[in-house]
Amino acid sequence: MKHTITFLPDNITATVDKGENLLNAAAQAGVYVHAYCGGDGICGKCKVIVNKGEVRSDKANLKQEDWEKGYRLACLSTVESDLEVTIPEMTTKSGKILKRKPKTTRTISAKAQDNLIGSWEIEPPVSKLYLELDPPTLEDNIADMNRVMRGFGQAFPDHVGEPSYDHPELIKYLPAVLREADWKITLLLLRRRQGGFRIIDVEAGDTTSRLYGLAVDIGTTTCSGVLIDLNSGEILAESSGYNGQISCGEDVISRIVYAKRPGGQQALQDKVVGTINKIIEDICRELIISPADIAYMMAAGNTIMSHLLLGLDPKYLREAPYVPSVSRFPLTKAAELGMQAHPSMRLFLYPCIASYVGGDIVAGVHACQMAKSDKVSLFIDIGTNGEIVVGNQDWMVCAACSAGPAFEGGGIRYGMRASSGAIENFQIHPQTFDPMIVTIDRIKPSGICGSGLIAIVAELLESGVIDQQGKFRHNLDTPRIRQGVDGWEYVLAWARDSLIGEDIVITEVDLDNLMRAKGAMYAGYQTLLESVGLGFADLDRVIMAGNFGAYIDLERAICIGLLPDMDRENFYYIGNASMLGCQISLSNANRFQERLAVRQLMTNMELSENPEFMQHYMAALFLPHTDMSLFPTVQEKLQEIG
Amino acid sequence: MKHTITFLPDNITATVDKGENLLNAAAQAGVYVHAYCGGDGICGKCKVIVNKGEVRSDKANLKQEDWEKGYRLACLSTVESDLEVTIPEMTTKSGKILKRKPKTTRTISAKAQDNLIGSWEIEPPVSKLYLELDPPTLEDNIADMNRVMRGFGQAFPDHVGEPSYDHPELIKYLPAVLREADWKITLLLLRRRQGGFRIIDVEAGDTTSRLYGLAVDIGTTTCSGVLIDLNSGEILAESSGYNGQISCGEDVISRIVYAKRPGGQQALQDKVVGTINKIIEDICRELIISPADIAYMMAAGNTIMSHLLLGLDPKYLREAPYVPSVSRFPLTKAAELGMQAHPSMRLFLYPCIASYVGGDIVAGVHACQMAKSDKVSLFIDIGTNGEIVVGNQDWMVCAACSAGPAFEGGGIRYGMRASSGAIENFQIHPQTFDPMIVTIDRIKPSGICGSGLIAIVAELLESGVIDQQGKFRHNLDTPRIRQGVDGWEYVLAWARDSLIGEDIVITEVDLDNLMRAKGAMYAGYQTLLESVGLGFADLDRVIMAGNFGAYIDLERAICIGLLPDMDRENFYYIGNASMLGCQISLSNANRFQERLAVRQLMTNMELSENPEFMQHYMAALFLPHTDMSLFPTVQEKLQEIG
Repeated sequence: MKHTITFLPDNITATVDKGENLLNAAAQAGVYVHAYCGGDGICGKCKVIVNKGEVRSDKANLKQEDWEKGYRLACLSTVESDLEVTIPEMTTKSGKILKRKPKTTRTISAKAQDNLIGSWEIEPPVSKLYLELDPPTLEDNIADMNRVMRGFGQAFPDHVGEPSYDHPELIKYLPAVLREADWKITLLLLRRRQGGFRIIDVEAGDTTSRLYGLAVDIGTTTCSGVLIDLNSGEILAESSGYNGQISCGEDVISRIVYAKRPGGQQALQDKVVGTINKIIEDICRELIISPADIAYMMAAGNTIMSHLLLGLDPKYLREAPYVPSVSRFPLTKAAELGMQAHPSMRLFLYPCIASYVGGDIVAGVHACQMAKSDKVSLFIDIGTNGEIVVGNQDWMVCAACSAGPAFEGGGIRYGMRASSGAIENFQIHPQTFDPMIVTIDRIKPSGICGSGLIAIVAELLESGVIDQQGKFRHNLDTPRIRQGVDGWEYVLAWARDSLIGEDIVITEVDLDNLMRAKGAMYAGYQTLLESVGLGFADLDRVIMAGNFGAYIDLERAICIGLLPDMDRENFYYIGNASMLGCQISLSNANRFQERLAVRQLMTNMELSENPEFMQHYMAALFLPHTDMSLFPTVQEKLQEIG
Repeated sequence: MKHTITFLPDNITATVDKGENLLNAAAQAGVYVHAYCGGDGICGKCKVIVNKGEVRSDKANLKQEDWEKGYRLACLSTVESDLEVTIPEMTTKSGKILKRKPKTTRTISAKAQDNLIGSWEIEPPVSKLYLELDPPTLEDNIADMNRVMRGFGQAFPDHVGEPSYDHPELIKYLPAVLREADWKITLLLLRRRQGGFRIIDVEAGDTTSRLYGLAVDIGTTTCSGVLIDLNSGEILAESSGYNGQISCGEDVISRIVYAKRPGGQQALQDKVVGTINKIIEDICRELIISPADIAYMMAAGNTIMSHLLLGLDPKYLREAPYVPSVSRFPLTKAAELGMQAHPSMRLFLYPCIASYVGGDIVAGVHACQMAKSDKVSLFIDIGTNGEIVVGNQDWMVCAACSAGPAFEGGGIRYGMRASSGAIENFQIHPQTFDPMIVTIDRIKPSGICGSGLIAIVAELLESGVIDQQGKFRHNLDTPRIRQGVDGWEYVLAWARDSLIGEDIVITEVDLDNLMRAKGAMYAGYQTLLESVGLGFADLDRVIMAGNFGAYIDLERAICIGLLPDMDRENFYYIGNASMLGCQISLSNANRFQERLAVRQLMTNMELSENPEFMQHYMAALFLPHTDMSLFPTVQEKLQEIG
């Protein structure tokens, strides 16, 4: 349920979910409210008056008289109805009343996303066929398998040739199954790429109602699984967990290094298999089904994850010229990798493009149907490596950018993952330069996550605390700008307001690292576009995938130059596109077959030693960019403020 | 080198190989020579005079004066040139001089056999392709497997699509092979049934000159292997050995029973795999090659052997209605069965037809090209089970006959396998009823093998010692016909002339068993022919396969009713047809593909409870048959003698 909040005196409205935190609602609406403590109720600064409507509030740290006057701490209030809220007037040091100016924020509409992904029939590549066979007699004593084939042929009279079967165990248990089941059996069939079917299992009795598929996203950090009822397309259960390989290294490079140890590669394979087994167990326990009931598995992961899962040596992925062993992964039986699965259960892995453009990207591109549209799309997945794909139904180029880990908190002094206490939203008082800090889980701040970093840098830039080179203006009248061990820095939270008991700052080194990260991404877009003779003007839309995209504020990301400055309507966010691709492939045979064609369309570019890329990269080490004509709306905004 | 021998006084000529034993040459020519001791030189009866030409003789047991007169013992003489030999005249008890009458014997000409099998191009289903690939660069860093595919595509520009590969290990070792071999590699390719190729191995450097295939005949008693150079078609080495399963039972039924024990099936699989491994080892040691150099293996065995090799439960093969698990055996990797072989090396097993008509028969039918001829052929393989196939290019029916083990010495009081001391040739003096005995290896007799049994029964019948019901005539004047523990019997060798120190006899019970065996075969031919509305007159030719056929005397086999009485020119013998089929499939891809079509053409008939078969069987329990019109030449001969 949605509620509308009107913030007075500036008459800024916002629509939020019932139960949303009021401070966060203000932050998202671009309304500055004093708040130092991240939303913990400690600093007591975020007092507002609720004129109309209902909030649920905690009285802690509020004087009785303030409470009675109708003051509430925004950070301790949740939205229960439509509201009219007055934010007390603030004066600048010079006595001037601060006027709040509404800021544009962007969330991408779910509807646009649905259009992108489209819909699909539930017609999975695996299906079941129930057969009642005639028992053999002396006059009709053909082999058991031939009897099954004959039954199949009667059910599919138009099928060309016999279905194949390549599971050697199948014919071992077939005779017993047939006789125990009194010749009433269910075939589990897989559509073959070259047409026709392959029998992958024979079950006793009628089991057609039990047909499940598992979609698995194999992330470097997290693995997730989604179980789908392939008869209805319904998602029945989900589970996820940290990739067990984390104990061998946080990122893909450290995993590759680990694989070089004696037994290291095997250990990595075992760990990811163990992680997937845990997911399978969780889901099966929840649904009270057996792992053997899962008919097939569609997985996607980056190239390193895919290699490690299949037991392929990842070492050449890291050495120039960065060559994967294989890009179209062979048919694999999950049980042969050690997974808890029926011995004939097939694991399909999305094909990869290059060492650093993996099956997760192919799955994402597949999910968003870029390869079916005449629109030129820019597909982005931002993480330690940013993967970029540009193209449409006729062509696609892709590349990986070593953006560095800034967006995951790496290389940032107080950087952290997006977990409790991470500053995720931020505003700055344009005169006092005091911050408004909202953290994940509304506790005292302990650091800065990726989306927080973007918010902070954009705000610092827009408020003039830093210049376009990412340097602090030393002449501003605030103790928050100071010199620290890494040079100039800005204090986001004083030690007393921080969870970690020390000042939380953002430094010029941090700003430098962020600029490198976003500059690499932007240079990547440019290089790919130019490689096919295009520019940003030719781009019809931008599609963001990955967790990161969920929390990113479009205006701010454009403001710092991470995203191109184009019509906001043409930005799409599709979440975990890799998982989405797996789910689609699981439940629709035509889409399933498409995945290889999508991969065929994609051409990789190596940016690492590409001179055009280096040139674009140097030009992008500026906020938002040295070429301001590329960022007209940012230029306008900065001029207005400036 | 062949030599002609003229036997006087009857002027019977025979053509034999240089070095042939003279007694055996006489036996084969149908010339009776007194000989009790099997050719051991003991009885000293087989004296002949060599008038012209050269023999090599041993003087043992011959008086000096006889030697000087030019007498030689035929059994101790070998043919060294063309000969003229006088056999001393023998008188009957009544003083009448015995006239020898030449008998017709038949050996099937090698030329006819060659016509049957035909010739084939050396164009095996596996081939090698040497590629020199461009090493990867940053601009061209496609996956290793894609580079191999690209190299393949350049070599075969007309190939539709990429070759497939399904060996999961291949992509594991591919990167190392490519780099160690400096991107110069050899692909081992298999032609796929649906067209195109499958990559089954990648080897470092140019290994095109090493391309070997192994043909394996998996017999219940003996397994044999033949290694073929697939570049030239040449046979490089052969090896064989007893099937290790013999320790679990002599025949297929006892193997099926053994398989029911806990661990029994696995033990049987291990033993036959061990036997084949021994063959592979022997051949590889002889040629100084590695088992990994064998590119593919083509094997054939009866249905029970095939099931046990693949680890399939044979129990339903023995229980009515006698259903195999599978008739077209799935693609199998030999290493997965435990064979010493390259992990990707494929083992192809000839498909089977029914529980008792196996891949060995399909291989034989395939080898003799029955399915390519408009002639109606009768294909026979006689053993414990006789397998029969009737048909031509348009249709084929087949059946197994439980002929019983008589032809392998089973159920015959002094029956034995065809080994040293077995009576393999036999003639009888038409007046004295004394035998002429020739044994394998020319030692004192120890028993009767299958071909000996046929010779003995035919001779006893033609000489009137037994009647057409297989009963002894008691009124003949010879101590050799007597009553024994099993009823009437004929003494083939007195204890003093036998190796086992007791009289060797053939009994009426033995004769009964033989009649059942040959009767079942003949009834089988008749039932199959009639099932398609034909009779013996419609039969164009008879093709005999298997070891047994090598030693069979056509006239005698027809005489007892084991083979149909038709023009002797239309009988063919093709030896180990099963092995021959494997060899042909190894070395020619088109013939290789044919094998499945041959199997498709063949329809099984169960004779075990077939009323027509039972009727024909009863009618065939006579020598040669109750319906003498089916055996005109035998009738004529018997009337002449009678």
